[in-house]
Amino acid sequence: MSRLRADHVTSFSQAQSAVSLELFPDTAARSGGVLSVGGVAATELAERFGTPLVVYCRETLVAQARAYRGVDSDALVVYGVKAFPSVGILRLFASEGLGADVSSLGELAFARRAGLEGDRLIVHGNNKSDAELEAAAAADALVVLDSSEEVARAHEARVRRVLVRLTPGVEARTHQSIQTAHDESKFGLDPEQALATLRVALDGLEPVGVHVHIGSQLARPDESLLAIDRLVAFCARARDELAWTPRLVDLGGGLGVAHSPKEDVPDAHTFASALVARFRAGWPEPARLVLEPGRSLVGRAGVTLYRVGATKRSGGVDYVAIDGGMSDNPRPQLYGARYHAILANRDGPAEGAFRIAGKHCETGDVLIERIELPRPRRGDLLAVPATGGYTLAMASNYNALPRPAAVLVAGGEAELLRRRETIDDLLAYEA
Amino acid sequence: MSRLRADHVTSFSQAQSAVSLELFPDTAARSGGVLSVGGVAATELAERFGTPLVVYCRETLVAQARAYRGVDSDALVVYGVKAFPSVGILRLFASEGLGADVSSLGELAFARRAGLEGDRLIVHGNNKSDAELEAAAAADALVVLDSSEEVARAHEARVRRVLVRLTPGVEARTHQSIQTAHDESKFGLDPEQALATLRVALDGLEPVGVHVHIGSQLARPDESLLAIDRLVAFCARARDELAWTPRLVDLGGGLGVAHSPKEDVPDAHTFASALVARFRAGWPEPARLVLEPGRSLVGRAGVTLYRVGATKRSGGVDYVAIDGGMSDNPRPQLYGARYHAILANRDGPAEGAFRIAGKHCETGDVLIERIELPRPRRGDLLAVPATGGYTLAMASNYNALPRPAAVLVAGGEAELLRRRETIDDLLAYEA
Repeated sequence: MSRLRADHVTSFSQAQSAVSLELFPDTAARSGGVLSVGGVAATELAERFGTPLVVYCRETLVAQARAYRGVDSDALVVYGVKAFPSVGILRLFASEGLGADVSSLGELAFARRAGLEGDRLIVHGNNKSDAELEAAAAADALVVLDSSEEVARAHEARVRRVLVRLTPGVEARTHQSIQTAHDESKFGLDPEQALATLRVALDGLEPVGVHVHIGSQLARPDESLLAIDRLVAFCARARDELAWTPRLVDLGGGLGVAHSPKEDVPDAHTFASALVARFRAGWPEPARLVLEPGRSLVGRAGVTLYRVGATKRSGGVDYVAIDGGMSDNPRPQLYGARYHAILANRDGPAEGAFRIAGKHCETGDVLIERIELPRPRRGDLLAVPATGGYTLAMASNYNALPRPAAVLVAGGEAELLRRRETIDDLLAYEA
Repeated sequence: MSRLRADHVTSFSQAQSAVSLELFPDTAARSGGVLSVGGVAATELAERFGTPLVVYCRETLVAQARAYRGVDSDALVVYGVKAFPSVGILRLFASEGLGADVSSLGELAFARRAGLEGDRLIVHGNNKSDAELEAAAAADALVVLDSSEEVARAHEARVRRVLVRLTPGVEARTHQSIQTAHDESKFGLDPEQALATLRVALDGLEPVGVHVHIGSQLARPDESLLAIDRLVAFCARARDELAWTPRLVDLGGGLGVAHSPKEDVPDAHTFASALVARFRAGWPEPARLVLEPGRSLVGRAGVTLYRVGATKRSGGVDYVAIDGGMSDNPRPQLYGARYHAILANRDGPAEGAFRIAGKHCETGDVLIERIELPRPRRGDLLAVPATGGYTLAMASNYNALPRPAAVLVAGGEAELLRRRETIDDLLAYEA
């Protein structure tokens, strides 16, 4: 991979492209109209690795990890693997002192492959299998109990240290599919259930802490702060009624990522600091804090590159079709997510508003309803920022489309995180 | 696989289970409370192949294929592969005289693996790549042109026979994501564009026909009939203005499947017959008809078996967690689909209303909001009918969950259609 010379790179803080790069990774820049990330030109990445391609900026990943680590020097920061299960990214985060939070045998396998175990591994799940509990025990991981019946099963599986998941009864302002802490949630235990579970767990297991998580893609800390007040009240009840205090207090994750210029999301340090300060003010006893960011660690670090194919006008709409769509990023269909995009191979003034449609045989396969761009032509590259989380993680093979590769870029070099799927890979499952 | 003796099998037309089996495949039956499909007990299938498992009834697949074939003896019936790309099912349908409609290089590879080519292969897509056009040409398939710029590209790729996709400007009454023929659709050409495309295609390509498709999961033929009237009008214009008449007329697909007892969907023969009769009445000239059913061929033939895990009460809701969810069937999240379920390993009167939650770390991962059942216990099997289409086809590895296997059952025997994914399969893509 050739290095781009620094003098060819225009910082995104200059020039007309300034606004359009704000959602991109820290190293995003334009040189002669060509987007680069980590010092590697998008055109070169597309040529070498093909499209669609998810490009992760190492510098942004590290910066986000450090933003969380800097909130509280003693805190344990664990990456919510479900945002993007990647051994390479888990290893990078591990080298920054982070652990992992996992919620399946598969995610546990990814984390162990990256060398994580013990205190740096937290196992969640509303329906843990025996195999998952046994694998958690084998890794000496911390297990978050989600129901009282799990106590006996955890004990049976030789799990040692556990946390209880408290449902604080707070409705996060986010898409209802990713609220997790309202009264009716499938997750966690209300305070009475959590106390009862702790009481049982004290006989045979080692309950080390308590966990709350109120939702995902949050744009403000308000509901999280309310959840923390309820967590403090729960800690006080546990101390008074069970003579038990938590050694570990897991404040969950949930900070969102801006996908379009209209969205306003606090930075990681500000968001996490507010939570930590609120908890410390309410609960001055010694306790190690755990933070579980997922999306906000990887979301803005990732950019997806697509190749433009057919363009056409239909019913007054200018369609631009790309070589991916709802199979590699189903968030528009699942959550009504709205994305932004730029042309990555050339720059220029907007020449119209376009609808970015995917390649799937489905009308709903629209990635972006309306975006102003220079008129895209067949062969152009489209870059969609803030696509590092919950994209490849949720990707399908709809229409028998192989899933994209992912690469890590830094200092003018690119390395594969995950190879591209092939049609032969898909056929290999057929009898 | 042992055969169940016929005298142990109670037909679903008898007894209290009658209502609850109406959405199931033709061979579904109960014996001592245990569900069987194709003469194989669900308990045995779950034991042998694991869960989640998608079970396809051969008899139902064949019956649905014949229902379409019986509408018009000369018609070409092609299976819409995107509903479930499966080499085994494609081979079964091919042995019943069906072809395939595909919309990607991957789907084309599945169809060719099943031995389909030439007239029995129809290639769609709003954004066909050069590789797809070349593969279509190599298979001597029929290519449906979706834009006028495709004419030159098809010619370049040595495609021979083409159809034009007409957008009839009809709004189907279905989820807006799967409407395909309204004026603003990303698919197809309005009548003026279609005529212009035909005119260009007549120089160098062999335009053999015209195609319309108005949407998916349709519950009534009304809008399709209107689309057919517009198709007839288009054929008349093409004859008058270009002295061209279609040899092939592709009426598309789109018939839905009932997923819950509240849904009422016409049978395949009735639906397709209405379309064919309307077209023949309006266009008496000789033309071979093409029908493109997908979902209605495979939907009701498939039943998904899940194992029940955790059960708990939260905020007044009785949760039952299963070992799959939105990764193997994202239709509730994508389309608001509502499914039905029964316990597959035992029968009995309803003991309450339950919410069936998946295993994913996401609140929206609810497969069924409310279903009356005998109280499910850990280890029970849950059977969800009408899950043969757009389930495995759209499945993901969210939360690093491996995707289910699929089996074909008939006459007391079960064979694998697609093997279960493993965690090692997922890790194999990691660098």
